[in-house]
Amino acid sequence: MLPVVAIVGNSGSGKTTIVEKLIVELKARGYRLAAVKHAGETIDLDPPGKDTWRFSQAGSPTTVISSPAKITIFKSIDHDPSLEETLMSIGEGYDLVLMEGFKKSKAPRIEVYRGTDAKGMACPESDLSAAISDSKLPIKIPQFRPSDIGGIADFIEKEIIGKAPSDIEVVVNGKKIFMKPFVKNIIGSSIIAMLSSLKTVGIIRSVIISIRNKE
Amino acid sequence: MLPVVAIVGNSGSGKTTIVEKLIVELKARGYRLAAVKHAGETIDLDPPGKDTWRFSQAGSPTTVISSPAKITIFKSIDHDPSLEETLMSIGEGYDLVLMEGFKKSKAPRIEVYRGTDAKGMACPESDLSAAISDSKLPIKIPQFRPSDIGGIADFIEKEIIGKAPSDIEVVVNGKKIFMKPFVKNIIGSSIIAMLSSLKTVGIIRSVIISIRNKE
Repeated sequence: MLPVVAIVGNSGSGKTTIVEKLIVELKARGYRLAAVKHAGETIDLDPPGKDTWRFSQAGSPTTVISSPAKITIFKSIDHDPSLEETLMSIGEGYDLVLMEGFKKSKAPRIEVYRGTDAKGMACPESDLSAAISDSKLPIKIPQFRPSDIGGIADFIEKEIIGKAPSDIEVVVNGKKIFMKPFVKNIIGSSIIAMLSSLKTVGIIRSVIISIRNKE
Repeated sequence: MLPVVAIVGNSGSGKTTIVEKLIVELKARGYRLAAVKHAGETIDLDPPGKDTWRFSQAGSPTTVISSPAKITIFKSIDHDPSLEETLMSIGEGYDLVLMEGFKKSKAPRIEVYRGTDAKGMACPESDLSAAISDSKLPIKIPQFRPSDIGGIADFIEKEIIGKAPSDIEVVVNGKKIFMKPFVKNIIGSSIIAMLSSLKTVGIIRSVIISIRNKE
């Protein structure tokens, strides 16, 4: 799974602004980013009557508009996608996925909290990696001020990007295969060793292999 | 590369309707489809001021809306994406990608042509796998009537899906690796053999492996 951090919080807490500023800061540090908004209600931006909408109505679960400067991909699903399903649809090639929302996921979560919000925090402290607030909160996890984007980015760099372990995921015939850690290790290191023997390949940080197999 | 067929033709020739009907027909035959529209002008459906638009403005090249029933992915690029780049952004897990447009690509192309169009055909016959027209065209490639969706689907099934060879693509650190056929063969068959030894894996038709490697 891609390294991911979810910025969570009650509505109006300032999540979007924090994600925006983190994008600027982490991009400046050289990281390849994707940013995801979790919406509670269905958001369908495919314009009714246009070609991709017609393809979707005809039954194509994935439709795409390929245009200069922008590729747009629509995926229809019959439920609210989990964080894992959302990540799978993004593909690979990112150092970090910044999520807004997904407070109920298992992802590392940082809550933005206005101390004045009578509802209290959106997540229990035990679910959070850190909190962002101008008020001094009675918590033991790291706390940052909303203005301290550099500090929050340092934390994400060290605790999330830095601690993302080596990992291998295998999907066969569209289904993810469960493998025990030692099996992952054997398969992953065999593949890395094979690819390392190719002349054009230097240090390997990430690999994506797609195989289509007849028979 | 995923098996792909491009339905090409002059504007107004009826490409969209043909793609729509092929989606219905090929889906009924059990194929997993994606459908792509190639637009000549930039189409940006990300609503200005909304969160994904703000993330994009802040510098995130990929932004995503994850919502019940629909995931939407926006990818910003600095040029008109090629068919190959568009396919890479869709990911894997499809039996066929139906494209509308991409008449200048190297993909197998089928032209929809109204015999009355004074401009003539959009592609030279030598670039085409087949043509769709109600007029009898002076060509040697297979020709179908627009109403013969079953016949067109048979042709795509036999000539494109059926003839898509076994293949392996390897992307290391975000860049596709060129491999000679015998190297592809060795690496592909080694991986298939390794995965076949796992108890939970039966017949392997497609594999996607993602590896994140520290050091």
